[in-house]
Amino acid sequence: MVGSSIGHNLVLTSFGESHGKCVGAVLDGCPAGLELDEKDIQKMLDLRRPGQSLVSTQRKEGDMVEILSGVFRGYTTGAPITTIIWNKDHDSKSYAKLRTTMRPGHSDYPAFVKYKKFNDHRGGGRFSGRLTATYVMSGAIARKLLKVTLGVETNAYTCKIGKIQMKNQATPQMLKSIYTNEVRCPEKAIAGKMKKSILDARKKGDSLGGIIESVTNNIPIGLGEPIFSSLESELSKAIYSIPAVKGVEFGSGGSGFSGSEKFGSQNNDSYTFHRGKVITKTNNAGGILGGISNGMPIIMRVAFKPASSIGKIQETVDLKTKKNTKLRVEGRHDPCVVPRAPPVVDSIVSLVIADQALQGGFIKPVI
Amino acid sequence: MVGSSIGHNLVLTSFGESHGKCVGAVLDGCPAGLELDEKDIQKMLDLRRPGQSLVSTQRKEGDMVEILSGVFRGYTTGAPITTIIWNKDHDSKSYAKLRTTMRPGHSDYPAFVKYKKFNDHRGGGRFSGRLTATYVMSGAIARKLLKVTLGVETNAYTCKIGKIQMKNQATPQMLKSIYTNEVRCPEKAIAGKMKKSILDARKKGDSLGGIIESVTNNIPIGLGEPIFSSLESELSKAIYSIPAVKGVEFGSGGSGFSGSEKFGSQNNDSYTFHRGKVITKTNNAGGILGGISNGMPIIMRVAFKPASSIGKIQETVDLKTKKNTKLRVEGRHDPCVVPRAPPVVDSIVSLVIADQALQGGFIKPVI
Amino acid sequence: MVGSSIGHNLVLTSFGESHGKCVGAVLDGCPAGLELDEKDIQKMLDLRRPGQSLVSTQRKEGDMVEILSGVFRGYTTGAPITTIIWNKDHDSKSYAKLRTTMRPGHSDYPAFVKYKKFNDHRGGGRFSGRLTATYVMSGAIARKLLKVTLGVETNAYTCKIGKIQMKNQATPQMLKSIYTNEVRCPEKAIAGKMKKSILDARKKGDSLGGIIESVTNNIPIGLGEPIFSSLESELSKAIYSIPAVKGVEFGSGGSGFSGSEKFGSQNNDSYTFHRGKVITKTNNAGGILGGISNGMPIIMRVAFKPASSIGKIQETVDLKTKKNTKLRVEGRHDPCVVPRAPPVVDSIVSLVIADQALQGGFIKPVI
Amino acid sequence: MVGSSIGHNLVLTSFGESHGKCVGAVLDGCPAGLELDEKDIQKMLDLRRPGQSLVSTQRKEGDMVEILSGVFRGYTTGAPITTIIWNKDHDSKSYAKLRTTMRPGHSDYPAFVKYKKFNDHRGGGRFSGRLTATYVMSGAIARKLLKVTLGVETNAYTCKIGKIQMKNQATPQMLKSIYTNEVRCPEKAIAGKMKKSILDARKKGDSLGGIIESVTNNIPIGLGEPIFSSLESELSKAIYSIPAVKGVEFGSGGSGFSGSEKFGSQNNDSYTFHRGKVITKTNNAGGILGGISNGMPIIMRVAFKPASSIGKIQETVDLKTKKNTKLRVEGRHDPCVVPRAPPVVDSIVSLVIADQALQGGFIKPVI
Repeated sequence: MVGSSIGHNLVLTSFGESHGKCVGAVLDGCPAGLELDEKDIQKMLDLRRPGQSLVSTQRKEGDMVEILSGVFRGYTTGAPITTIIWNKDHDSKSYAKLRTTMRPGHSDYPAFVKYKKFNDHRGGGRFSGRLTATYVMSGAIARKLLKVTLGVETNAYTCKIGKIQMKNQATPQMLKSIYTNEVRCPEKAIAGKMKKSILDARKKGDSLGGIIESVTNNIPIGLGEPIFSSLESELSKAIYSIPAVKGVEFGSGGSGFSGSEKFGSQNNDSYTFHRGKVITKTNNAGGILGGISNGMPIIMRVAFKPASSIGKIQETVDLKTKKNTKLRVEGRHDPCVVPRAPPVVDSIVSLVIADQALQGGFIKPVI
Repeated sequence: MVGSSIGHNLVLTSFGESHGKCVGAVLDGCPAGLELDEKDIQKMLDLRRPGQSLVSTQRKEGDMVEILSGVFRGYTTGAPITTIIWNKDHDSKSYAKLRTTMRPGHSDYPAFVKYKKFNDHRGGGRFSGRLTATYVMSGAIARKLLKVTLGVETNAYTCKIGKIQMKNQATPQMLKSIYTNEVRCPEKAIAGKMKKSILDARKKGDSLGGIIESVTNNIPIGLGEPIFSSLESELSKAIYSIPAVKGVEFGSGGSGFSGSEKFGSQNNDSYTFHRGKVITKTNNAGGILGGISNGMPIIMRVAFKPASSIGKIQETVDLKTKKNTKLRVEGRHDPCVVPRAPPVVDSIVSLVIADQALQGGFIKPVI
Repeated sequence: MVGSSIGHNLVLTSFGESHGKCVGAVLDGCPAGLELDEKDIQKMLDLRRPGQSLVSTQRKEGDMVEILSGVFRGYTTGAPITTIIWNKDHDSKSYAKLRTTMRPGHSDYPAFVKYKKFNDHRGGGRFSGRLTATYVMSGAIARKLLKVTLGVETNAYTCKIGKIQMKNQATPQMLKSIYTNEVRCPEKAIAGKMKKSILDARKKGDSLGGIIESVTNNIPIGLGEPIFSSLESELSKAIYSIPAVKGVEFGSGGSGFSGSEKFGSQNNDSYTFHRGKVITKTNNAGGILGGISNGMPIIMRVAFKPASSIGKIQETVDLKTKKNTKLRVEGRHDPCVVPRAPPVVDSIVSLVIADQALQGGFIKPVI
Repeated sequence: MVGSSIGHNLVLTSFGESHGKCVGAVLDGCPAGLELDEKDIQKMLDLRRPGQSLVSTQRKEGDMVEILSGVFRGYTTGAPITTIIWNKDHDSKSYAKLRTTMRPGHSDYPAFVKYKKFNDHRGGGRFSGRLTATYVMSGAIARKLLKVTLGVETNAYTCKIGKIQMKNQATPQMLKSIYTNEVRCPEKAIAGKMKKSILDARKKGDSLGGIIESVTNNIPIGLGEPIFSSLESELSKAIYSIPAVKGVEFGSGGSGFSGSEKFGSQNNDSYTFHRGKVITKTNNAGGILGGISNGMPIIMRVAFKPASSIGKIQETVDLKTKKNTKLRVEGRHDPCVVPRAPPVVDSIVSLVIADQALQGGFIKPVI
């Protein structure tokens, strides 16, 4: 049934399957007048591409974006912007025997019950992490739109892999070095340990999860609507569209869950004037009060479960024989998807912030 | 701007303000044929009412629900069901001086910037926790609908206040004793400590936060849609509409964040046949795989920040004088909103699950 | 099921039933800062009220609007504006025998099949023309918003009753005299004939239909979106929410249907500069090209079928006995609803135009 | 801004431009299990293709549909179905001079004001009739879905061109011969006259409009929702998305406008039992009462204005020189678009009916 579109004034419709002809995105509502070509998108898409290092799967995807509509003479026209990637790697043979043997941790079982034998299970079909490429294609456009019109900067980075974590939130300076290493952690020493832990897990045929932190600066005050379109509502809904996400919290230093342990007098952010502007001394609220942006950086943390595809033998069921069985998922898989997630999180954040900025009139229909 | 409605096939529109004439809810899409009267709703509304104990504010709200539309001869008709509570307690004098002095932790500042002098700031206006009564009025209907048609049971309880927490998830047996104490914690000994910690905080003019755990049983397999209407997306969006929520995670034992520390081989839930049905041995996924329900209980944990209104003096700004100032929020306030949250979380969960069940055809237009 | 809300950036949710406690409207998305009180709404509501003359039903409704939310100190706050009318006239006895005897022309039969015995059939329930009061309550707000911010003026009038019709479209001067007679026709002589034809029909226990013409001036250029949110799409969708409407066409002089008989060289509107502004010499397009407003007056004609409730004996079926039967609808009914329709059409037009103006950024979130 | 999607449970998102790379459609919400391949769609697409006769433009489009997603092993999967046509005919030179000279009757002027210089004006861009191919690609799927699951049959035909019209509604028998002639009129003699009138108009460099009648049989009772999702609301909204449509009315024999001239006693459709089923003796309501289907055929008439592109010299403005000027639109254009409209109307009707059937649970998520 429906569920492939998100947004109010900037609407992303995602289509395609992991092993189908393509994955694609239609972005409706982008203002006219934004300078845009494939390179703007490709740059961000490349950052989520696997195959760059030992960390990720060794498939060579080499995804190339193509703009199919909505751009004329190098500028957006106000019409829906369709972007597409043609799939190359179509070997779905290894999925044949998976039709009735349910992989633990994957969508196989509920998808089989929901769509019966019609589900396109190859490579995870609609449930594959590959679909996040459609978020990035549109998110790259939204991110550029925000940068050009409002100067908004959003940066996500890996702050935890397994049990290895950064001690503190990244400083503005550190945000510049996110992509200097394969795990996308802006703290070099920690990045090294993270990489090692991933390699170790892979060696054992196992996988790891982790946490992404997202920091967005230069946010105008007043984004979001009270009640059901709070910024947290809109952001978390969109973030949970990323496969493997199982937790979202807001606030500096993971205030969401750890902040719930504090006293109000510790957690409330005091206001003060700073160069004529109202700021808060701390940012436990993560830039959002009452669902509305207060001008401070928006801080969000996103928990990813360990990748479900592992080399180890697992217990499961065979729906055909109706018996318990064992399964070893073949093929080369990401031992950890977290290093690929920062551009995906940046994309989702950009889409939501741009949507709210259009809703509130912060961005004009023709820029 | 817009943002007061949520849902696809079961749409809740919330209206009213904390110190206005009323708060109300329009629930559109409820099937015809559900037996319903005010008592069904009042029962659940009473559970969130403050003033029952030392724990909460001592205002007497005595909220009485009135059904304005959608019910005829004791049954729903298929028309929108409007429910309303008339506000009684209208003393807004203490809010007059708050017009330009921003309360830390509250929506005051972004709301002032967003709506300028037109914002109804009395008692928090649209941003008040009082609006959750509108969720409960509609949620009680959704909850009954789910119970009657599918046998779904949803139960939320307080699992942590400040640093006091339950060791384990509540057993099915324990779920029956949630409302036997004022903090709504099904573990009696822990409940006592929680109550004490709240009373201590109140004595100091301070406040506490905490965590609510939600368990939903008898969920049909196949609820939710891949990509943007994943069950996690829909649930978290709705949950973040509750004021003070800053974190949402899914999975048994807080798998969302803590699960991101595990190996895949630990976190994947093995399948097995149990009395002819497919179940998982563990439930780290919290009943949701690929965004779709897998038939296991849906487990969600919700982090609430400590209440923003505290008796202690706080640093803030006065937007009129454009100077830093100090503020002591007057009046009697909840030192901890968490004990009032379980029926609110139950309501939101019921609304979302019922919406998805209607979308997927699990519930018929006339029951 | 759902269907009680309309609009994108200005969302009207309508609730209530003809013989229930009330009819009401929630208007979400209205900007903050609009001066508003009950009188602004009552004025327009009074214009649709029956009982003013021999033309309409002789029930005394005396509808008084009450604003329940969204207004503070005389100005809109940006929160949803709820307006309500409490129903007085509750005598539903005459409807008891109609439960299984289907009135021709009414919704009785499809509603019975759709909602079964749960349908609130009293007075037409949800299908009653009385629900148009909810459009007027919100429409009056939208109309004031448009007038104050953009100077938009919308005026609907009766141009045809039965076979009696005005020869030409009303001149701007004539628009001022719409409400000088009971049939709301700005041409006095025609109005007299219309009134007589209605009285004649009533005497025979019969009813009449007619046509409303709507003229909207001072429309900004660029309202509406190509493809599925064309102005014609949005307007006609909303207009068809008025009971008894069976036709909608756009263009000066009824161009919709009669214009389809012309040659392109006759129907195309030539452009010319007029005092530095681009205008068209004719307005066969009714102010809309490619779904977008072109700055010329928006002209729409709306066909109403004759009222379904007539005093004559009609052939029908009894669903209980499963036999053919005869029916004479009792009670006093409008012999013609058209004279009550102009304020309803004005309301719908205002809601749609304001919605599009907000969408396009023509009206700011705080005015 | 947004506006490229339509539907609630079956959502069509249309993308592409007349002279861009492609036109395409994403159809979200189609149930799993529908047998589908390109031929099902191509067949219907061919019926709207120009170049088949003297009647239409003589460009050879030769549109070939390609399914990009949502189909696996010959069956729909429940995922969004993307269909695309690659544009071939890219000669946009003749449009260069049209950038600032506004073609009367076209969207040029409002589009220029709305999107400024960024509008893709080539061949009408987003406003081109070519976009109706996206409706047909998705509509063909919806039409098959309706046929297979509910036996619904929808057939549109040309009933009027200029002033040449059929006397009566087509009989069921006649509906089979719609596509036996180039003008798609099921009455052979009238079809001949229509063709001649089009050829005459073309010879004079002029154009003609006309009326399409749509008849849909085997409709279940209870489709549509009262108030804002009445069947008439949903149908007319979608129909007005077809370029050149300026009028929509419902009811047998054009009851919409002509029915407004009748007495209620003439217009009400009497009920009677017929072979145990309730039917109406006449069908002035066009199968819709109170916005809900009553089981009788849905009858709708759609008025198309004469094509705006004509060979005659027209008066217009040049926005660059800011002077009045004259314009002769070059190239070969359709003298009448009406003969191409029947499959487009059938597509729109199918999409709306299928959407409502899914909403009401008449069609299951897996068929």
